[in-house]
Amino acid sequence: MDMPSDVVELAARLVDISSVSGNEREVADVVEHELRKHPHLEVLRDGDTVLARTNFARSTRVILAGHLDTVPVADNVPGVLTADGIPTDGSRPSSSSFEEATMLWGRGSVDMKSGDAVFLALARELVEPRLDVTWIFYDHEEVEASLNGLGRIERNHPEWLQADIAILGEPTDASIEGGCNGTMRLNITARGVAAHSARPWMGDNAVHRIGAVLERLAAWKPQTHVVDGLEYRESLLAVGVQGGGARNSVPDSATAIVNFRFAPDRSPEQAESYVRELFCDTDLQIELTDCAPGARPGMEHPEFAQLADALREHGAGDPTAKLGWTDVARFSALGVPAINCGPGDPTLAHRADEACPVSQIRDLHRTFTAWLL
Amino acid sequence: MDMPSDVVELAARLVDISSVSGNEREVADVVEHELRKHPHLEVLRDGDTVLARTNFARSTRVILAGHLDTVPVADNVPGVLTADGIPTDGSRPSSSSFEEATMLWGRGSVDMKSGDAVFLALARELVEPRLDVTWIFYDHEEVEASLNGLGRIERNHPEWLQADIAILGEPTDASIEGGCNGTMRLNITARGVAAHSARPWMGDNAVHRIGAVLERLAAWKPQTHVVDGLEYRESLLAVGVQGGGARNSVPDSATAIVNFRFAPDRSPEQAESYVRELFCDTDLQIELTDCAPGARPGMEHPEFAQLADALREHGAGDPTAKLGWTDVARFSALGVPAINCGPGDPTLAHRADEACPVSQIRDLHRTFTAWLL
Repeated sequence: MDMPSDVVELAARLVDISSVSGNEREVADVVEHELRKHPHLEVLRDGDTVLARTNFARSTRVILAGHLDTVPVADNVPGVLTADGIPTDGSRPSSSSFEEATMLWGRGSVDMKSGDAVFLALARELVEPRLDVTWIFYDHEEVEASLNGLGRIERNHPEWLQADIAILGEPTDASIEGGCNGTMRLNITARGVAAHSARPWMGDNAVHRIGAVLERLAAWKPQTHVVDGLEYRESLLAVGVQGGGARNSVPDSATAIVNFRFAPDRSPEQAESYVRELFCDTDLQIELTDCAPGARPGMEHPEFAQLADALREHGAGDPTAKLGWTDVARFSALGVPAINCGPGDPTLAHRADEACPVSQIRDLHRTFTAWLL
Repeated sequence: MDMPSDVVELAARLVDISSVSGNEREVADVVEHELRKHPHLEVLRDGDTVLARTNFARSTRVILAGHLDTVPVADNVPGVLTADGIPTDGSRPSSSSFEEATMLWGRGSVDMKSGDAVFLALARELVEPRLDVTWIFYDHEEVEASLNGLGRIERNHPEWLQADIAILGEPTDASIEGGCNGTMRLNITARGVAAHSARPWMGDNAVHRIGAVLERLAAWKPQTHVVDGLEYRESLLAVGVQGGGARNSVPDSATAIVNFRFAPDRSPEQAESYVRELFCDTDLQIELTDCAPGARPGMEHPEFAQLADALREHGAGDPTAKLGWTDVARFSALGVPAINCGPGDPTLAHRADEACPVSQIRDLHRTFTAWLL
């Protein structure tokens, strides 16, 4: 099945192919079919990840990567190209031709098949790019990290991840979001002494003690770290709490599940120490359960500066910091400076009403073309 | 199978008959067998509840009641009569003869087969008591209220619960604990607005908001109400908390499970209003999930005053208030003033090391005999 040549029509067709994590085969088949048509590309298939690269022996190689999977659909596949805006009542928008459409609505329109479409169109069209390019379309990004297609490529074909810089097409409203905050989860547990709830003064209420932890988290002021010129705003919050439950007992244990999003100038060890320091005057138990390091943006690389200039010419804002964690951290860990740049408002990702402005798809397609030619 | 005549040996034999809630038949059979031997008693069996009463047309009738079931055994049946104290390592004590024993160890020794033994011995021995007496040995007290044997008698044989006063043999360290606090459970729920945990300022963290609820509960000062001369200390506490749990989301809901133990001079409605008042400056959702009214002690009844005097002569302390909820509230609801009075330390109830001083069993046996003759 051949895909349309127009980048917006291509994005809409990719949205129409359902590819919830674990079911990426059909869309990967389509991507592979498109890439294998072009003799300027060396193509590799690994599971449902498809890679392609040019081999012009340029002095600089850039990776452009996007994941093919989506979170579960919510009555929003197939997608709709519309010129009439997105209904606020959750119903499907009315459709229009791709030439007239202003929005692409549907699962993955933001996260991140519009970005995939830009990269796939460029891969087909740029038969002689100024830089060597490695294109990566990968599976299993929206699920647990151990399944991630990029991680599998790192294990099976590490040479395919060698590059000077990398760009992930994650939604950034078509501007640059550099690097990413790190993220860690910690269980903060208060211990108490059980007693009958009719005589609570004979015990020590662990749920009451966790209340003080939650109050301290609520009072925490976000801190902003400037890293390579970008402002990383940190977050520290409880994402869950659990304790007690026996009908007539003073609870002897309660746990707050805490998420710390830390700027990429903190190592994971430094970030953990920071949280422990906040509670050093307590006898709480603090257990690190999960951690992924952040990524410095590497904006000092001249090719990123040039891309930023090209984006500004098309009306994009200045580069900002990525606050959520993305796979740029994988590249950063490999020593490859990485940024996020893709169409779509990131705050709409995973929502039932996710929709991407068609203009951002076309603008990015033009800008990347100008940058790579 | 005949039971021993000595009240302590009788208590030990009752402990030896396992009677976890739902399995009271064997012990009820034994009690029924004992009671039916005596022509001064009219006996009724209903399920595994056994009732007996005298019919001397006295001006005053007293109910003496005890439940036959226990919480699950914990390697502590059969029980042990010991003169050597209770090992602190959880092992079985060494046994001694009932004449030399100082403690009865085992499941139900406190809650409440020692009390049952006192009442069963008295029922057999007091062939001509000063008051008419109704003896009740009932099933299913340690489980959900709908199964309670007293409740079944109230439905099936309400005339058997007619009396002027009632005494439950629940453990009170052989003194009087009058009435009981009421108890209610409420779910206090904070609502928030979900957001990605990398941008928590775009949401409203319900778990952080429940922290303020927990802090307010922790800061609550217990209040003591004097009712009919007894001091009822109230409790208000979180017995559980639950909220959030999604890895990367600002939680939009969190609930504290709150237990209020309220003095018997508050009606359930007044008690609920009191809790709502504490949080009236918030937009929290407060839902009453469970409520049992308290019981005024009715200590002004002259027979209770006389019993208190008799107990003091045997070294018992002054009457105090019962802080936990007991079936005295059932009698109170029927208009029958009721108190708790039984051997054993109530704080040991349900523990694996529960054990009752033999002296309390003998003292209460003597005191009740003196009071009823």
